[in-house]
Amino acid sequence: YEYIEQELRKLKDLPAETTDGYRIALLGNLEFPEEVPSLKEHGGQGVGLYRTEMLFLNRAGGADEDEQFRAYAAMVASLAPLPVTIRTLDIGGDKIAADLHLEDEMNPALGLRAIRLSLRRPELFKTQLRAILRASALGTVRIFFPMISGIEEIRLVKVLLAEAKDELRRAEIPFDEAIEIGIMIEIPSAVVIADLLAKEVDFFSIGTNDLIQYTLAIDRTNEHLAHLFQPLHPAVLRSLRSVVDAAHNAGIRACMCGEMAGEPAYLPVLLGLGFDELSMNAASIPRVKKILRRAAKTDAERLIATLLTFSTVAEVEQFLKAEIAARFSESFD
Amino acid sequence: YEYIEQELRKLKDLPAETTDGYRIALLGNLEFPEEVPSLKEHGGQGVGLYRTEMLFLNRAGGADEDEQFRAYAAMVASLAPLPVTIRTLDIGGDKIAADLHLEDEMNPALGLRAIRLSLRRPELFKTQLRAILRASALGTVRIFFPMISGIEEIRLVKVLLAEAKDELRRAEIPFDEAIEIGIMIEIPSAVVIADLLAKEVDFFSIGTNDLIQYTLAIDRTNEHLAHLFQPLHPAVLRSLRSVVDAAHNAGIRACMCGEMAGEPAYLPVLLGLGFDELSMNAASIPRVKKILRRAAKTDAERLIATLLTFSTVAEVEQFLKAEIAARFSESFD
Ligand SMILES: [Mg+2]
Ligand SMILES: [Mg+2]
Repeated sequence: YEYIEQELRKLKDLPAETTDGYRIALLGNLEFPEEVPSLKEHGGQGVGLYRTEMLFLNRAGGADEDEQFRAYAAMVASLAPLPVTIRTLDIGGDKIAADLHLEDEMNPALGLRAIRLSLRRPELFKTQLRAILRASALGTVRIFFPMISGIEEIRLVKVLLAEAKDELRRAEIPFDEAIEIGIMIEIPSAVVIADLLAKEVDFFSIGTNDLIQYTLAIDRTNEHLAHLFQPLHPAVLRSLRSVVDAAHNAGIRACMCGEMAGEPAYLPVLLGLGFDELSMNAASIPRVKKILRRAAKTDAERLIATLLTFSTVAEVEQFLKAEIAARFSESFD
Repeated sequence: YEYIEQELRKLKDLPAETTDGYRIALLGNLEFPEEVPSLKEHGGQGVGLYRTEMLFLNRAGGADEDEQFRAYAAMVASLAPLPVTIRTLDIGGDKIAADLHLEDEMNPALGLRAIRLSLRRPELFKTQLRAILRASALGTVRIFFPMISGIEEIRLVKVLLAEAKDELRRAEIPFDEAIEIGIMIEIPSAVVIADLLAKEVDFFSIGTNDLIQYTLAIDRTNEHLAHLFQPLHPAVLRSLRSVVDAAHNAGIRACMCGEMAGEPAYLPVLLGLGFDELSMNAASIPRVKKILRRAAKTDAERLIATLLTFSTVAEVEQFLKAEIAARFSESFD
């Protein structure tokens, strides 16, 4: 096992590139600055998902602007010039500070959460936006928004972001004027209108956990239904295909930050679909990179074309398994 | 008001047909045999959604086969030869008899319910299927299944239905060998693979309440989010379009049994999309028929083509409102 660890670390400085020269950026999902050394050791090319929820838990209104700035700045400065992709608050009313006074919700997964909560509390949201913008002066920052379901929401977000920038300009506080913005694609409506949303932002980041949950109407924490939570469901594959295509048709990046991204068995699928960036737990990066470096993009494209012809999950899984054994082996020979 | 009621009743025996000769069948959603006289008075052409949940509430295992048969038979016989479209059990574990011993679910709307529960309890399910099949000997019965999310589920349902038919054949109990089967389209994955599902069944029935809920990830009972529950969201319109098209490409009927079907303001949209059948509360039938009889299918098709070009709900709503005033008036002049 130690031997394997060592070998994986050797991969650190090799490019994440297929045998036919196609590159996918491999980034890390993280939450605390203490995780940065591990991300670097595993060869992460930046942070694809920086979760900010810990700054809002158990305190009224969340951390203030300065405290948020310090947290973001530490992360950004320690990784510069590598990018840090910061996701704005992504929790439900049940988890956030008591001053929101929200009742219990019958179905919290379908409730007032994430961007819906931020738009309900614009001052809270703009405080976070200003803190992120200030950190953008110290390195490469991108910002993205969870649970966008339609055009109106992202346009409203952009209005508030423009206000936050104006406030900083007036106070002569520096920030990256060209900061990129993106949205999570995790709600089925966002998949259906991905072509429209792609015109509004610089990148998509697919959150597969929620996307699968909502697409199949399966609570991913419900153990009775675990067998129905199927990342390889034909509807999920078609959804991923159409989101990546919508992104590329609009000239923007297609990224993934859900658990699927860090699962080596799915790498051939994601490579075939044409993802530009995958973000995962740091520890998964070497294994994914190893498979990527042995794979050919053309094989993966043929694979996905075949997978998309199947009607059932069983057919998809069976074919993928055989292909992995034949063409995308991760054995350490 | 009484004058209006009278005038609407006059519509009872007139066909549900546009000025350019296109017909949509208008049926009723109901639950009890006592509702049949009202359905007939309002000119309903059958039952598009017969809910069976009341036979399962508050009793271990639900009503037995004979009691179910008597309930279905009463409904079917009183309407024959008009069709009665019976939906199999569509509730969650929280609402069904205590003997299921299911824990509380965190998100019941995404939980073990509807067809998932029926497939978990095949004997319970087959009892219902046999009772429905027996009633099919007495008139025109169709059977349909809630919350289908993939091909495997409907195929499993069909295996169990075939077993129920075999059991009746062996017992020499009559039933309609050509009984039609359908599925509710209310889960986003079913929309995405509607072309595949259409090959498995005789009709689709779109449940708009749940379809909108899952597509937008908005709990329809959550008052904080009522403003985000948007039947005219561009993603909803596109979903409806692709489901109707998938049905017609496969030569099967596209029906709707959600609340949208009974709302007169949506009739031009549903007519333009090409629905074959709308099922609603009996009291809504005359108003919907009145608008339908004054409308032209060609106008509605032009309307929907324009609505599908918009990116925001506000644009869709504004244009629709103007069109209704100009071309789809329901004023009683
Ligand atoms: Mg999420
Ligand atoms: Mg439903």
